[in-house]
Amino acid sequence: MEFFEVVAKRYSHKASFDYDKKIPEEDLRKIVEAGMAAPSAGNSQSPEFIIITDEKILERISIITQNAILWTAPAMIAVVTRPRVREVLDITTECLICDFAVATENMLLAATALGYCCGWMDGPFTDPQVREKVEELLGIPDDRMLILVVPIGYPLQEGPRREKKPFEQRASWNRYAVERG
Amino acid sequence: MEFFEVVAKRYSHKASFDYDKKIPEEDLRKIVEAGMAAPSAGNSQSPEFIIITDEKILERISIITQNAILWTAPAMIAVVTRPRVREVLDITTECLICDFAVATENMLLAATALGYCCGWMDGPFTDPQVREKVEELLGIPDDRMLILVVPIGYPLQEGPRREKKPFEQRASWNRYAVERG
Repeated sequence: MEFFEVVAKRYSHKASFDYDKKIPEEDLRKIVEAGMAAPSAGNSQSPEFIIITDEKILERISIITQNAILWTAPAMIAVVTRPRVREVLDITTECLICDFAVATENMLLAATALGYCCGWMDGPFTDPQVREKVEELLGIPDDRMLILVVPIGYPLQEGPRREKKPFEQRASWNRYAVERG
Repeated sequence: MEFFEVVAKRYSHKASFDYDKKIPEEDLRKIVEAGMAAPSAGNSQSPEFIIITDEKILERISIITQNAILWTAPAMIAVVTRPRVREVLDITTECLICDFAVATENMLLAATALGYCCGWMDGPFTDPQVREKVEELLGIPDDRMLILVVPIGYPLQEGPRREKKPFEQRASWNRYAVERG
């Protein structure tokens, strides 16, 4: 799909997926490879990925996070980073956050380019108790931290797209002159 | 350009640009619009953008940052966010960091899709003295913070691409089993 068409099509899918329509492994791999191609500070390539298609594991994650939408996703990609994130902010931490954010964005766009819907789900994992249970389930070692999952699939119903502010309320030329909305 | 071709072509251009090859305003606007189309936490659309094409301002930024490569870029996009970033880390701050990171990634990909080279330059602005001087130059108000600039242009010479780790050193299926390189 043409790049600017992908950018226009991508949205955060927060409605149900069609669980019965599975995703070929080669597509999931292609999505993760797009994530790996994202830039990272000092080329550290800090984000790591777990592609989840096992029904039992998908079910367990939905139960632990008590999330009805995750329950319907036929696949998820878990994004993992180093442990200092969410504990202290220094430039290194900021870099690690940027690293997993841009890798995730590439995957959201890649999933959209392949015709899927997807979302960025980090909310449940800001609760350390939820996060640690899923980390244990996925065998994530102590020196790594689960940040978010990207559920991917075909939509059962298409979700709403959120409105974006006009250009002039977010951008200006040569000098800060953003019209605050 | 096709999406996966864009992802494969994008790299962090750290060599000189061809200053004499200007970028049409409509391309710069299209790049910023791609940044605006990126997701943001709670649809806050927190990142703001200043598109810089004025020769005097470009020159001043190069002088303040003492950066020889910025000197050669015919255009830059400055990315601005809320002020608490880099001061404290809480979930809100993490969200703001993710917001500007994914918006920037969309712009890097969009610039690549239009045939330009670009980079993510945040290093100079981690020094508060440098940052504040450029913020003053660009008229950025006290409740905003300059995070980075994206220099954009045609390359005078193509820069090197950095090697990426193989898939198995960053990803695994259903359980964390990344081969640590």
